Amino acid sequence: MTTVEELKLRVRELENELIKCKQKRCAEEDAGGNQMHHRPRIEKMSAEVVDSNPYSRLMALKRMGIVEDYEKIRTFSVAVVGVGGVGSVTAEMLTRCGIGKLVLFDYDKVELANMNRLFFQPHQAGLSKVEAAEHTLRSINPDVSFETHNYNITTMDNFTHFMDRISHGGLQEGNPVDLVLSCVDNFEARMAINTGCNELGQIWMESGVSENAVSGHIQLIIPGETACFACAPPLVVAANIDEKTLKREGVCAASLPTTMGVVAGLLVQNVLKYLLGFGTVSHYLGYNAMQDFFPTMAMKANPQCDDRYCRKQQDEYKRKEAERPKQEVVVEKVEEQVVHEDNEWGIELVSEVTEEELKAASGPKPDLPEGITVAYTIPDKEKTVTPAGETVEETEQSLEELMAQMKKM
Amino acid sequence: MTTVEELKLRVRELENELIKCKQKRCAEEDAGGNQMHHRPRIEKMSAEVVDSNPYSRLMALKRMGIVEDYEKIRTFSVAVVGVGGVGSVTAEMLTRCGIGKLVLFDYDKVELANMNRLFFQPHQAGLSKVEAAEHTLRSINPDVSFETHNYNITTMDNFTHFMDRISHGGLQEGNPVDLVLSCVDNFEARMAINTGCNELGQIWMESGVSENAVSGHIQLIIPGETACFACAPPLVVAANIDEKTLKREGVCAASLPTTMGVVAGLLVQNVLKYLLGFGTVSHYLGYNAMQDFFPTMAMKANPQCDDRYCRKQQDEYKRKEAERPKQEVVVEKVEEQVVHEDNEWGIELVSEVTEEELKAASGPKPDLPEGITVAYTIPDKEKTVTPAGETVEETEQSLEELMAQMKKM
Repeated sequence: MTTVEELKLRVRELENELIKCKQKRCAEEDAGGNQMHHRPRIEKMSAEVVDSNPYSRLMALKRMGIVEDYEKIRTFSVAVVGVGGVGSVTAEMLTRCGIGKLVLFDYDKVELANMNRLFFQPHQAGLSKVEAAEHTLRSINPDVSFETHNYNITTMDNFTHFMDRISHGGLQEGNPVDLVLSCVDNFEARMAINTGCNELGQIWMESGVSENAVSGHIQLIIPGETACFACAPPLVVAANIDEKTLKREGVCAASLPTTMGVVAGLLVQNVLKYLLGFGTVSHYLGYNAMQDFFPTMAMKANPQCDDRYCRKQQDEYKRKEAERPKQEVVVEKVEEQVVHEDNEWGIELVSEVTEEELKAASGPKPDLPEGITVAYTIPDKEKTVTPAGETVEETEQSLEELMAQMKKM
Repeated sequence: MTTVEELKLRVRELENELIKCKQKRCAEEDAGGNQMHHRPRIEKMSAEVVDSNPYSRLMALKRMGIVEDYEKIRTFSVAVVGVGGVGSVTAEMLTRCGIGKLVLFDYDKVELANMNRLFFQPHQAGLSKVEAAEHTLRSINPDVSFETHNYNITTMDNFTHFMDRISHGGLQEGNPVDLVLSCVDNFEARMAINTGCNELGQIWMESGVSENAVSGHIQLIIPGETACFACAPPLVVAANIDEKTLKREGVCAASLPTTMGVVAGLLVQNVLKYLLGFGTVSHYLGYNAMQDFFPTMAMKANPQCDDRYCRKQQDEYKRKEAERPKQEVVVEKVEEQVVHEDNEWGIELVSEVTEEELKAASGPKPDLPEGITVAYTIPDKEKTVTPAGETVEETEQSLEELMAQMKKM
């Protein structure tokens, strides 16, 4: 039997213990360098060169003539779908660059088995990836806004919510995000992102790492203009088997922090180039780690694409192109010169320069045997923000050969 | 008046609150990188596919046919000189890969101005970089041994100590380290590492990022065999002005987490390839972020090198090469075909395949104009550990042209 006195005593004990626990938490926060030593928010990015300015090295990009208006980074919102080996590093890089807002999607938990990649730490095992990521990222840069969603975007209800957040999760609530980044590890999720972005006309970038851990790629998808994920599916995911499927059979995909770090770095570099308008944004960039080989290419959208929204965006794009005055100053010049008229996928490989520019730049075309790609660049003599030195691509391969090559990645 | 029921309710409330407080405390300790939830040490790397195995994804490299003996990683000791934007990520990647031992050198303190690169966090501002790095790395992987030195290697006394640690800081104390990685940001420190490694005959890798933040490189230096840092200094550091010099004038170099992450990733990938014997180790790999262009080349040591130890190592290398039976199975085949007989640096650019192999692989040489490099690769058909698909390089440029090109990086 418990008396009122005994219960009152127990209440007092518990109250004391709770006070002590809270005090200890504060003390430990101090020692552990938590909440207390977080840097205060910064209202306005400054270029001042002092040790206490976290943006000095980024603002220096202006003085170096690389970026015209670095502060603009704070006006952008980027969605990162998948916060694993590539997505977490992607989110960290954008956070450190001072992006305006990040919208993170993932439904996985952190496991010790993820410790062979950057970002998550053993003490976070068991936490949801988005929750753990937000906590770390906030402490790295409190100037960034975060929105996290701990769900699988491929289920019907979640997909609807995902679409809503892409359309309205901009820095100004109600506006769409500026870019969607796919950092997922399976076909289904890529297809969901593709479907959603085609419907919304949302520009996105795809990334991936092969199951043998030694190759990866990034790809820019502009609905209606460049090939979407449904325009040429086997090209992009070839060897990327869903981790869940693999796990069930007691095996797992290999992964390396190096390959994932490189892919995340190349991805975010292209995000910065795209958002801040410098350099040349790669349409497709591969990374073969065994040989340090980096294939590039550009693919036009497939008029026979299975995705009806893709076909609709293509019509829209053609209409806009037709309406555009012929002699205006264009930022990105896309020549319609078709390399391969017929192929089973209906995909056209497009060179990003005119035939004449290409000839002048490269001299006679090398007669390369099957399976070899030439990727070269005219060095940018001026190092300015102008699109002077473009990545030049050329291929004498058939699409079938290219696909066979990609499947091996 | 409080009833027994009310008191019982209050007790339950307080108990719940206390549990929550304790849970939160743990979570916060974690975030602060405290000791509580660190994973225990692991005696033997296992390939078992369970969420709790931090090595499953790395051991899978064996099943995938990429690495023959992944566990060997634990037998190596790597020195990382400079724990800044590139060095810290380099150390983290090696730690997550389960390297045996890391020997870290740096004399800088963490500043908020470093927060635009990966790894360090705001709460570490003020700590020495090696101390902060060791703390974080140990909590990520307690299986790795760490040795840190908080000093500038370029002063006389420290240089002597540095040489001693390179010679004796192996996994088995007394043995040399297996590889030295240069991740420093100034000419003087690079020269010190170069001098030391030439004297010791120590293989090392150099890395660097340009002051405008949009290019970088890695380079493998085998004393006596490939060009050392003194064989061709302007090629390597061109635009890399010492941060300290810049700071004095109230300006700073620009830097990006993307470029530094990519360079660290490419560096550690080549470290893994070198130590574990898979793929092709790049002699020189550049990264031009503006255009996603990755130049490669190979450089032989300069017989007129200013560094007398370099010349001594060259003699040693030549003697060993002469002694080697002609028909043995060689792991790395270096053809002595000289592309450029005369140039002011006395450097010879060497193709890594025979003239015949090159012709068979690439067809007629393209007639490229000044400033264009062709880098292409024969895809590895088998994806095995054999050195079947080697990186093929070819250049029709003069050394002067190459140097002019590199200076722009």
